[in-house]
Amino acid sequence: MTDTGGLARTPQPPYTAVIFTSTRTEADDQGYEAMSAAMAELAAQQPGYLGMESAREDVGITVSYWTDENAALAWKDVAAHLVAQRRGRASWYSAYQVRVATVGRDYGWTAPTPHDR
Amino acid sequence: MTDTGGLARTPQPPYTAVIFTSTRTEADDQGYEAMSAAMAELAAQQPGYLGMESAREDVGITVSYWTDENAALAWKDVAAHLVAQRRGRASWYSAYQVRVATVGRDYGWTAPTPHDR
Repeated sequence: MTDTGGLARTPQPPYTAVIFTSTRTEADDQGYEAMSAAMAELAAQQPGYLGMESAREDVGITVSYWTDENAALAWKDVAAHLVAQRRGRASWYSAYQVRVATVGRDYGWTAPTPHDR
Repeated sequence: MTDTGGLARTPQPPYTAVIFTSTRTEADDQGYEAMSAAMAELAAQQPGYLGMESAREDVGITVSYWTDENAALAWKDVAAHLVAQRRGRASWYSAYQVRVATVGRDYGWTAPTPHDR
C-alpha cells in the first residue's frame, strides 16, 4: 500500500497499530540507519502490512499498521530477529517501548490541492 | 506523570493511545510552535492524561496516552477547540490523521545505567 505525503493510508477500522518509541544512545550510527531502512523494506513485504510512519527528534517514533494483531505479532518476531542478527538493541537504544494497539476509530483531513487529480 | 528520557511512562494495559500524524504546509511557523507547546501543556492538565511522545521529520507524530477512551475523546474536543481558536489547521497542515486505539499489550527495555538510582 502506498503513502500520501508520508501519512499511511489505512482502511476502515478496526486494524492494528504497533507503536515503537525509543531513545538513542550517544554512540555513532553503527549500522543503525541501514538497519532502519532494511526494517522498513522488510515490513512492507510482510503479510497484513498496511503502512508505516516514522520520525525522530529527541524521541524516535515508528508506527506500523497491520490488518490484525496476528499480523502485527508475526512482524514483531521478524523485526526482533533482524535486530538480533545485527548489532542489537544495546548499542543503538538507551530505552524503547513497544505498544500493540487496536485502532477503533480514525478520521483525517487533507488540504484541497489546486489541481486535484 | 513524568517521562523518562522522552518516553512516556504508562501503566499496565489496557489504556488508550491517540496517534496524531500530520504533514506541514510550506508556510512559515505562523504560531505553530507556540500552539504545539500550549497543546502539550494543556494535555498534561486533562483528566486521564498518562503521557505524550512527539517527533517531527517529514511526518509529525504525536502519541498521547489516556486512561480510557472517554478521557481521550474529551481531550480531542479540547484540542480541536484550541486549534480553532488559533489559526487553524488550514495554515499549518497539508494533511493529518487521528487514530484512537486501545493498547492491549506493551513491553519495553531500558539500558542499565552505571549508577542505577
